[in-house]
Amino acid sequence: MSVLIVGSTALDSIKTPKAENPKLLGGSASHAAVAASFFSSVKLVGVVGKDFPRKYVTLYKRHKIDLEGLQIEEGQTFHWSGEYEVNMNNRRTLLTELGVFEKFTPHLPENYKTAPFVLLANIAPSLQHHVLDQMQKPKFIVADTMDLWLNIAKADLITLLKRVHGFVLNDSEAHQLTECDNVFAALKKIHKLGPKYVIIKKGSHGSILSSPEGYFICPAYPLHNVCDPTGAGDSFVGGMMGYLATARGSIDANIRRAMIYGSVTASFCCEGFGLKKTTTIKRADIERRAKDLEKLTRF
Amino acid sequence: MSVLIVGSTALDSIKTPKAENPKLLGGSASHAAVAASFFSSVKLVGVVGKDFPRKYVTLYKRHKIDLEGLQIEEGQTFHWSGEYEVNMNNRRTLLTELGVFEKFTPHLPENYKTAPFVLLANIAPSLQHHVLDQMQKPKFIVADTMDLWLNIAKADLITLLKRVHGFVLNDSEAHQLTECDNVFAALKKIHKLGPKYVIIKKGSHGSILSSPEGYFICPAYPLHNVCDPTGAGDSFVGGMMGYLATARGSIDANIRRAMIYGSVTASFCCEGFGLKKTTTIKRADIERRAKDLEKLTRF
Repeated sequence: MSVLIVGSTALDSIKTPKAENPKLLGGSASHAAVAASFFSSVKLVGVVGKDFPRKYVTLYKRHKIDLEGLQIEEGQTFHWSGEYEVNMNNRRTLLTELGVFEKFTPHLPENYKTAPFVLLANIAPSLQHHVLDQMQKPKFIVADTMDLWLNIAKADLITLLKRVHGFVLNDSEAHQLTECDNVFAALKKIHKLGPKYVIIKKGSHGSILSSPEGYFICPAYPLHNVCDPTGAGDSFVGGMMGYLATARGSIDANIRRAMIYGSVTASFCCEGFGLKKTTTIKRADIERRAKDLEKLTRF
Repeated sequence: MSVLIVGSTALDSIKTPKAENPKLLGGSASHAAVAASFFSSVKLVGVVGKDFPRKYVTLYKRHKIDLEGLQIEEGQTFHWSGEYEVNMNNRRTLLTELGVFEKFTPHLPENYKTAPFVLLANIAPSLQHHVLDQMQKPKFIVADTMDLWLNIAKADLITLLKRVHGFVLNDSEAHQLTECDNVFAALKKIHKLGPKYVIIKKGSHGSILSSPEGYFICPAYPLHNVCDPTGAGDSFVGGMMGYLATARGSIDANIRRAMIYGSVTASFCCEGFGLKKTTTIKRADIERRAKDLEKLTRF
């Protein structure tokens, strides 16, 4: 089965203490779509400007990503520029040029509307709503978000949470949303807002799922060298949704393994700037690290 | 087999936003010894003053802790007072009265010297050395430490690391010792200083073992309510050593499960002030949570 993914499609200029990388392919939908493509077919919804490099269209196509829902508009592609500190944990935004993204309204092609799996990657909650308005009863909907929407569009996000099966956010966002310092107390509060499955991402500390079957403590893959963590969270949820879309059986039966695949796909993302490393790997590389994670957690 | 445990034996006055608890039984050796006592016999080495409450001697005895190595000196017991902030992560020392601890020199009773397992719980590295000087070829020696010793006794600590099999420290201490932000890079550097087994504690994010058999990612037990994390790290390493001392087979075969038991024992420690909760549990409670952790990490 296929996954519909909506989110930002952007050009990222990323500075770290070691290097500068102008206008890499970025955005939540790009990272999530490439990650999901290792497991299932992907239908992308996004917007780019006329300046969007042809090589990035080729990259999407190499990953067999359906681009019928990618709008190409007069103007500039969303451009984000950021800088990481030495420890790779603190990120500072240098520049945000919204370009065509400012007036983005996602229009779904007819054959997108029946996609059984929907990933509402990080984008304004109003646009996430707008995508759901056009869908015909998807089987499993997951939403991601970011601190910005908690600051400026919390009401929209709260109503969205009643419409999704799964919700993914990081630990500081969970704290911001619930005012709980304790992650398990936060999970409890978030369930009350709607989602049956809640996943809290903790970066290099892994992630935690709370579901009808209880908690799952999902490890991060051990990395000796993190090159650029941009898009790791999107890769995580993209890989997870891609795996879920093709796995047989119930969500409950598959979601733990899906998170492991997401975690592994995210680990590759961290090892190169933008999508540089992720686009060099094969499914077999993902399988290898998933097996490693099994060994690293068994006792 | 038995575990010899040396460290601080103190009275802790702990303030949290919710409560104030004067002169609880505390200190690294107290927490580690009680934790280890659920698994093996324990020989305690420490010092207290004439003011040391009789009820705490009774508490040690109820846990069948051998007190032949507990020196009772003229003067006051080491008294530490600290305050936790709302989120339970930031701790502020309000008062440190060393008392008899200032001139502590650990003297081992004859029958302590052949103990096969030695836990050098958090205490000055020079005293940890002094204990090892008196031992007759222990089978497995583990040292713990704290940031203070990295600041004021780093040279002593570095020479100690050549004499121990295992070393346990938290993530910020690992960063301070190695200047590596990446925990796996830090582990590599610490092995070069001597220890074959290195464990980095990450509080509620669990811990990571690096050993000849590779890494082990050890989860923390999910707690909805952390009452007082004082002594959790000591409980972790105490529980681990207690289990190792009685498990059949090699260290490599047992250390992962030993960490799980340590992690679970630490979880109980966090649920009460000082040793209040830990002293109410039974081995069966620990077994139950260890089984839970198996379920929480399986995929």
